[in-house]
Amino acid sequence: MDRREIFMAKKTKNSKSIKRRNFLKGAGAAALGAAAVSSFPAPAISGGHMEWIACSAFGKASGLGKAIDRFASYINNASDKLKITVYHGGELVPPLESLDAVRSGAAQMAYGAGYYWTNISMAPSFSAALPFGLTAQEQNAWCYYGGGIEAADKAYNSIGVKFLPMGNTGNQMGGWFNKEINSLADFEGLKIRMPGLGGEVLKSFGANTVLLAGADVLPSLASGAIDATEWIGPAADLGKGLHQAAEFYYNPGWHEPATILDCSIDMFEWEKLDDATKELITVASKAVNMEVLSFFQAVNDSSYQKLINEHGVQMRQLPDPVMNALGQRAGEVCSAIAAEDPVSQALFSHIVEFRSSILRWTNTSEKEYMRVRSLPFTYPSA
Amino acid sequence: MDRREIFMAKKTKNSKSIKRRNFLKGAGAAALGAAAVSSFPAPAISGGHMEWIACSAFGKASGLGKAIDRFASYINNASDKLKITVYHGGELVPPLESLDAVRSGAAQMAYGAGYYWTNISMAPSFSAALPFGLTAQEQNAWCYYGGGIEAADKAYNSIGVKFLPMGNTGNQMGGWFNKEINSLADFEGLKIRMPGLGGEVLKSFGANTVLLAGADVLPSLASGAIDATEWIGPAADLGKGLHQAAEFYYNPGWHEPATILDCSIDMFEWEKLDDATKELITVASKAVNMEVLSFFQAVNDSSYQKLINEHGVQMRQLPDPVMNALGQRAGEVCSAIAAEDPVSQALFSHIVEFRSSILRWTNTSEKEYMRVRSLPFTYPSA
Repeated sequence: MDRREIFMAKKTKNSKSIKRRNFLKGAGAAALGAAAVSSFPAPAISGGHMEWIACSAFGKASGLGKAIDRFASYINNASDKLKITVYHGGELVPPLESLDAVRSGAAQMAYGAGYYWTNISMAPSFSAALPFGLTAQEQNAWCYYGGGIEAADKAYNSIGVKFLPMGNTGNQMGGWFNKEINSLADFEGLKIRMPGLGGEVLKSFGANTVLLAGADVLPSLASGAIDATEWIGPAADLGKGLHQAAEFYYNPGWHEPATILDCSIDMFEWEKLDDATKELITVASKAVNMEVLSFFQAVNDSSYQKLINEHGVQMRQLPDPVMNALGQRAGEVCSAIAAEDPVSQALFSHIVEFRSSILRWTNTSEKEYMRVRSLPFTYPSA
Repeated sequence: MDRREIFMAKKTKNSKSIKRRNFLKGAGAAALGAAAVSSFPAPAISGGHMEWIACSAFGKASGLGKAIDRFASYINNASDKLKITVYHGGELVPPLESLDAVRSGAAQMAYGAGYYWTNISMAPSFSAALPFGLTAQEQNAWCYYGGGIEAADKAYNSIGVKFLPMGNTGNQMGGWFNKEINSLADFEGLKIRMPGLGGEVLKSFGANTVLLAGADVLPSLASGAIDATEWIGPAADLGKGLHQAAEFYYNPGWHEPATILDCSIDMFEWEKLDDATKELITVASKAVNMEVLSFFQAVNDSSYQKLINEHGVQMRQLPDPVMNALGQRAGEVCSAIAAEDPVSQALFSHIVEFRSSILRWTNTSEKEYMRVRSLPFTYPSA
């Protein structure tokens, strides 16, 4: 592939990430995590306040890295009972082991996405990103006033943590490809980075799906270790440089309609907090939830324009019959995976019941509004 | 009208509202406001903390009444420097005089919607609800990461207050009508309650538009004082009983795509706060913003189903040519009103520039996702 070769020839700054990954792979990431964990301090009461460690799955400089930093700062500025110290992805444990760190007692909070924790449980994947599921607005309605947090908590509690939504990517892009997808047969043998349930749907059509942490995505795409990848949306994807290694950019993200970033708090540490501190954490998490979604929505267009106009990225959509088959299969695959354990089943049932109700409202309101807003009338633009 | 007669015959609990309004009208609401205001205490420092009065334009029992109560409670529980006491609509001043109370010094904060303050300034109407403007997700992107709060603050500052968004209705419904609208000519002479810029658009087609506070809407519709009204959406409209007095329910709300509920804080009181308290207010307002939108989205469908299936409400949509003409005229009317003063002009220009950018992204992501989600595949519903 042209773009891949150009990228590899550049020997960009990503060589560092590749080396780090090789090291972690070589040394055994889990072993490193465990070794590091054993030397961490237990959560402490110091000067009359609790001290928590939060492990994030995201890079410090990313939008999500800044989000968890703001969250900690909101708590630290407002509370004299709790102080949170954030460790970004890889600073204390490898990104995808953030929840392991909480479960081992090395940290009290993890920040990530439900489908990052599939080594522990499949259930959080359902609330994080259900293929053909809820939009961001619907996810938040479900969480806060549709019994969603309580339903998800049954799944998170079963692995020892309390769940709070703390950010949403909004509708993601469908991903980066070096060959066009014109029929279902084109998924056969495709090596694609797609985490969670979306990946399972593609697997059922013969794709080889893998889960890679953020730092490994571009090197893998550039080296040809994978043929395609999804990441988030234009702003995050441009930042990661994915256009350097792939030509076609698909919209929309059927596999991640609106991914919830999750805050997972050690249940026992949570229960130690007084009501005022619990309320403060809940309020701050709602504020950050609002901020993260708003950030992605505000910055995506300019990155999207840059990708197309400056980097020559070519936009593509899956043909409707392919999309329709994915929709049909998504329901079947997700149902089958949910049926494998009662915790996933309960959460999945709760979400799809809410989905069938709110869909009627969204189609009546937002969807129809977006349609009439696109009628051919002219409207001022400055 | 049948429904109107049934409603009037019932002599429902709304007679109280009618009487109150008649009283206020008779006595002169402004005079009452002024008299009451003069006897209020100035904001006090008591036991080392500031004490603020917040005046809300909404009823205590409504979703928005509960929202401002939660906001005050979040602040009061977390801060030892500021205590907020909420007065709901009519408790201290008439609902639409909440901002007047802040400007007179009787209160330090008002909770309402930008188009409630047109007696003071037209400018806040542009950020509150621009016909054919931003969706809720876009409004929040604009506010928090598109320079929106800063742009709106130039308008709010010009009338002595600081602006914070604190809730969003999401896309509203198009309103309640007792006759169908099949062409633009049907707007001629129509007496309709529609506040703000949407009302101005209909006025340009010959409608007689009025602004009424919440308590007066149903009695006016039932008595025939108005032919039609918009309010919010199914949950709020069902609660208000509007189906008792009108037959046709139109979707979507082109006139209020996603109305911002605003928190207006006395600028001088705001500047007296330390940074931590300002941050706490900002964080709590973001959380309540998230809650209000999520609440409306979560509850609208069940109310919408009740209206149709239990109350026999008939859904209607404006024909596309009528909608297209409204879109065209909306841009013209809003441009003309904005041009009347430089503060409105600056705010309007800021919004429509952001609109033309984010529209590309929303159409690529959310809009296209909602379309493919509606392809004919079957999907589990429980």
